Amino acid sequence: MRQALSEAERRDWLRLARTENVGPVTFDQLLQRFGTAGKALAGLPDLARRGGRRIALASEAAVEKELADGAALGARLIASCEPEFPQAVAALDPPPPLIWARGRVELLDQPSVAIVGARVASAAGQRFARGLASELGQSGHVIVSGLARGIDGAAHEGALPTGTVAVLGGGVDDIYPPEHRDLYARIAEAGCVVSESEPGRAAVARDFPRRNRIISGLSRAVVVVEAELRSGSLITARLAAEQGREVLAVPGSPLDPRAKGTNDLIRQGAALCEGAEDVLRALEGLRGFREPERGGHGGVADADPDDALRASIAALLSPTPVSRDEIVRATGAPAAAVYAALVELALAGRAELLPGGMVATS
Amino acid sequence: MRQALSEAERRDWLRLARTENVGPVTFDQLLQRFGTAGKALAGLPDLARRGGRRIALASEAAVEKELADGAALGARLIASCEPEFPQAVAALDPPPPLIWARGRVELLDQPSVAIVGARVASAAGQRFARGLASELGQSGHVIVSGLARGIDGAAHEGALPTGTVAVLGGGVDDIYPPEHRDLYARIAEAGCVVSESEPGRAAVARDFPRRNRIISGLSRAVVVVEAELRSGSLITARLAAEQGREVLAVPGSPLDPRAKGTNDLIRQGAALCEGAEDVLRALEGLRGFREPERGGHGGVADADPDDALRASIAALLSPTPVSRDEIVRATGAPAAAVYAALVELALAGRAELLPGGMVATS
Repeated sequence: MRQALSEAERRDWLRLARTENVGPVTFDQLLQRFGTAGKALAGLPDLARRGGRRIALASEAAVEKELADGAALGARLIASCEPEFPQAVAALDPPPPLIWARGRVELLDQPSVAIVGARVASAAGQRFARGLASELGQSGHVIVSGLARGIDGAAHEGALPTGTVAVLGGGVDDIYPPEHRDLYARIAEAGCVVSESEPGRAAVARDFPRRNRIISGLSRAVVVVEAELRSGSLITARLAAEQGREVLAVPGSPLDPRAKGTNDLIRQGAALCEGAEDVLRALEGLRGFREPERGGHGGVADADPDDALRASIAALLSPTPVSRDEIVRATGAPAAAVYAALVELALAGRAELLPGGMVATS
Repeated sequence: MRQALSEAERRDWLRLARTENVGPVTFDQLLQRFGTAGKALAGLPDLARRGGRRIALASEAAVEKELADGAALGARLIASCEPEFPQAVAALDPPPPLIWARGRVELLDQPSVAIVGARVASAAGQRFARGLASELGQSGHVIVSGLARGIDGAAHEGALPTGTVAVLGGGVDDIYPPEHRDLYARIAEAGCVVSESEPGRAAVARDFPRRNRIISGLSRAVVVVEAELRSGSLITARLAAEQGREVLAVPGSPLDPRAKGTNDLIRQGAALCEGAEDVLRALEGLRGFREPERGGHGGVADADPDDALRASIAALLSPTPVSRDEIVRATGAPAAAVYAALVELALAGRAELLPGGMVATS
């Protein structure tokens, strides 16, 4: 079922993905409901109005500018339905609708391991990450990381000769930190730079969860090297576990605050990593990716919720995520109608559709 | 059933325990077979002869000297059947028949945690061990260790104010390393020094497994702080696991060779220890000691193996330990007769009875 989009379809996908209140979950639902992005765009204003608010579609001019900006960088826009889209990321529920990729796109479908960790890393930690990346690279693995200071940068460096992928929170041209300018250039040349954001965008805090989901999504295993408690690397590790990826952590002395996060991961069941051997052993135990847990509740194409249902659903939502199925049970309405109403509420900014079939107020 | 020995019985126990080829397993078997140590001493020469060799009982003079030496040190000799014998050690299969204890004997029956580790320890590791011992001491735990350089010494130091037990491979007066003379004196005063060996004996390599078995035997949990691969602390950890004790290990950087052993323990299932909290949490999960796995094959009092059986059993033995039950199956003889023959062979130095019902050539 994977097929390349026509240029017109690609524009429709991009326009739909860039429209306000359309996140990956809503995008996925709309595609299921309408069949194509073009039809979804046509139906969207009406849906949003039903949800209780007017919605402005992304402008055609913005779409043209993004395509031109990407082309100027030599980057490619790949949709999740296309054959070039990395298969492991396409299997996420939901996948990012589109990614920009700059460099050797073919690296995205090779067996990969993510190495992530503290930005303020020790010299020893960076040396370890560099060595681990080099060894895993020599054993045929692409190394995925986030181009950040510290562990991320060291991991990319170690894997430059064999293949490395940098996933950015901002656009594929958003070089941060500035001292990684040279590293970025070498990755864009010999490796691949990936982002879900539009070119030209500088990363802000809320971009990182989406970046981290792609880092773990691309990888069969995620290794965390040095992490304090409550750090971003631990979020990546949690996402990786939810995605069925192997999670490994490098232990450290209890006297080193940068080992608190990794030791805690080990305590919670992450495999202990002292080197490439441990990663390879963990991968041996891995029999392909876990099946994606996509809805399977049937299409929502014919559902047509009424105002009363929308109102009762809106009243059921709170900042605490609940499953869509719980909403279905609470309303007693047909699942298809509830799902449709939730998409309408999401478009109107009154609900947020979360991965894993969860929903909350936005 | 626990009762103090008379002075005559104590002498018999000591003499039997000090007789050549009588280790804890053989001692235990002989006591089961004959009922008392005195009767075992009387029957021993004949048994050994049947096993194929003459045996020299320990001399009465040596026994008197050992008792006098111990008394001169103010140490107490405690038999495994006596109420003062630490209950957790009495439950081992088999227990050491006798221990010497110098200092506050009552510490031996209080909730204890062993802290052991590398002799050539890092300053950080020693600081950690000292702090851990202090915290666990304040939470009501006696700290058990082996008086060695490095981690052991630091653990004792940290627990001096609250209570600590040093288990020695040599006699209770065998101060090693020499720089621990002052530490030893403070433990003998405020804590307790314990040994299975006779006073005056300087430890040799083969004393340490017995010492380690008492360290773990006394303790509800064993914490290993810094250990290289194939080090003695890992043997203590293995014994502790076999005895049903909680095993914890302090993680460290993969770049630190002193963390190789502890990281490996964690990989094998030891709990990760970053501080006293982890130990206390592990102890919460512990519901009393595992039941001792004593034979339960009934008495061997009436067994009377013949030469043919002895010969066929001797032929079945090799340096590779096998279970006594395997020998029973292989010979087809009654279990009681096989056990009796094995004791005779052990006394004659032709078999070695190992803990857990295993047997090998000695």
